[in-house]
This record gives sequence, structure tokens and C-alpha cells, in this order.
Amino acid sequence: MKIALVCFDGMEELDLVGPWEVLRMWQLQYPDDGVEVFTASLGEPTVTCAKGMQIVTDRPIAEIGEVDVVLFPGGRGTRMLVQDEPTLELVRDLAGSGALMTSVCTGSLVYAAAGILSERPATTHWSAMDLLVGLDPTIEPRPDDRWVDSGVVVTAAGVSAGIDMAHHLVARLHSSERARQVKRDIQYDPAPPV
Amino acid sequence: MKIALVCFDGMEELDLVGPWEVLRMWQLQYPDDGVEVFTASLGEPTVTCAKGMQIVTDRPIAEIGEVDVVLFPGGRGTRMLVQDEPTLELVRDLAGSGALMTSVCTGSLVYAAAGILSERPATTHWSAMDLLVGLDPTIEPRPDDRWVDSGVVVTAAGVSAGIDMAHHLVARLHSSERARQVKRDIQYDPAPPV
Repeated sequence: MKIALVCFDGMEELDLVGPWEVLRMWQLQYPDDGVEVFTASLGEPTVTCAKGMQIVTDRPIAEIGEVDVVLFPGGRGTRMLVQDEPTLELVRDLAGSGALMTSVCTGSLVYAAAGILSERPATTHWSAMDLLVGLDPTIEPRPDDRWVDSGVVVTAAGVSAGIDMAHHLVARLHSSERARQVKRDIQYDPAPPV
Repeated sequence: MKIALVCFDGMEELDLVGPWEVLRMWQLQYPDDGVEVFTASLGEPTVTCAKGMQIVTDRPIAEIGEVDVVLFPGGRGTRMLVQDEPTLELVRDLAGSGALMTSVCTGSLVYAAAGILSERPATTHWSAMDLLVGLDPTIEPRPDDRWVDSGVVVTAAGVSAGIDMAHHLVARLHSSERARQVKRDIQYDPAPPV
């Protein structure tokens, strides 16, 4: 099971690292599950995130080969990607290959622009819901959902929602029991103080 | 208000990036608050995290100057740091300078080894509670708390707890209103599926 996390300049840090933590914990703590999680850059090997952090990626997107799952983070970098035809073609190719397409936050804008959310329920960051439907009016917006699993595409709400969606992916792709184990490993018993 | 996030090989990715996302969102969305958040490396400029991600840090720890807040992530890299006298001396110096000392997960083990948790309530990752008290038996363990604010030291539980603690820090250092705004910016309405 190969899981590629797409990286690009202007992606939001936690959109990537929340799911990364969950999915790499799955890979490394439960090696018999046969999961391989890696980052794949759309551009240069080192990406500069929306909040300024620089992350060195694992491989270029052109070299990922066949993958089972794609995760597309959001962030202001997506505003350019929705108009970048090579990226939209890449998304269509990955979806066409049968990969499970997942997104966090405004990553779903890129999916919408590529046309793979057509006539599907989907979500995004609360502030981008109009943008999402503007890109494809056939999308059924789900502003109140933490993530939306529409079968071959799974979209999550803003930033931190990627952590919840990643647990859902572990449950869907393996088992609820494994998702509970990973949740315990990262002590994910959230208690926001405000 | 200068906030330094300490980085080192073997730190857990989400221990760092959860608080980073919260605190940098505060800095960048509310510039009039005068907050400056940066990463500071104990070693080489590029650190390799516990789950394999490489992050390029902002500056060496030797060059951070006076800071108001220090955040020490956890991860298996802390196991060596608890025996590294220069790191322990650094922690004592930072605490002695009056900086608010905060930690995520097993970052508190380094604080315990440095002696700055003596006779204080504190927490850490659930699996490391015995290690924490073993390093300093005068610590009052708080295994059921998401974070423990003991005044000049604030410790958080495992990995994802850093996100909750970071919101607490925004509330403590500015206001509950600001913490609620940042929470909305990262859409932090957690809903674990398992």
C-alpha cells in the first residue's frame, strides 16, 4: 500500500504533517501492514510552506510510480495550482489510475478544478466553501462535515481536520482497531481549551 | 514576544508542527500582537525527525538571544538529550533567564533531567510517565491532564496535545478571544472517528 503526500510551495504545514504523523505512525509501528508513506514534490525538492517552514521532500512527483492513495494538502499555494494545467492533468491521471484521492483543507479546490469532484459531496476550509462550489457548481457542499468520504474521493475540512481524516483512512484501509492504536500512539484525545 | 521552538534530530514531527501552526497563525494573522515565532536547532540546520521528515530550521540555538517563550518537542531524540550536559545547561540557562518554558510529549523528560520540573506537577506522553518520575522523583505526575500549567513551566501530554497547549499559550499570553480566533483559522473542531 503506497501512500503519496503531495507537497508544493505554499501548502499549509499542519495540512501535511497532521496526516503524515498518523500515517507514518501506522507504517512504522505496524510494519507487517505493508504501508509505505512518502512525500512527493510538485516542484523543487525543498518546499516552503504557507507559514514559512521549509520541508525536504522524499521524491519528485514524476517518480512516484503507481500509488494506492494520494493526499493533497491545502494552503494558499493551491490558488495558483487550480489554474495550473499540468497539475490538474496529474490529478486526473492519478484519479484515473484508480488511486484513492484524498485532500485536506483547500486541497479540494485543486480536485474541483481538475473535475474529479463533479456531482460529489465534498468539503474544504470553511472560508473556501464558496470557492469550491464556484469551481464546480455540481459539487454538493458539506460545510458541517469534518471529512466527506464519497467513495473514490475523500475530502477533509480545514487544516486540523486532516488528522481526523487520516484516522478514518487507517480505519477504512485497515481496521478501526488499528486506527484506535495509532490514535493512542499519538495520544489523540483532543481537548481544546477555548 | 519571541517564541523559540527547539529542533533536534529524532523530534516527533507533530510535536513541533502542531504548535508551530497555531503560533505562526497567531503571528501572521494578527501582526499587531507583535509575536515572533521561529525554529532553533540544537545541531545541524536541517533536522531529521523521528518519523523521517527533514525540516530546515530558522537559526542555530546559539543565536536566538533573549526569548520570552521556549517550546521543547518530544520524540525519541530526547532519550539522548537527557544525558547531554550542554543541552541540560542550555535548558537551565533559558529557564534562569525568565523565559516561559513549555514542552510537548517527552520534551518534558529533558526538562526533568535539567531539574526545572523539581517539585512541580507535570505531564508527558502516557508511555513515558514512569521515565519522567524516574528522572526526578519530586515531580508530581499528572497522567490525566492534557497539559499542566505550573506557572513558569507548562508541559503537554503526548504528540497531538501540543495543539491544545499552544491554544492555551495564546490564551494565557494574549486572550481567550485571540485563541478562539486562531482555533477558527485552523478549524480546530476535532472529531476523532475512532
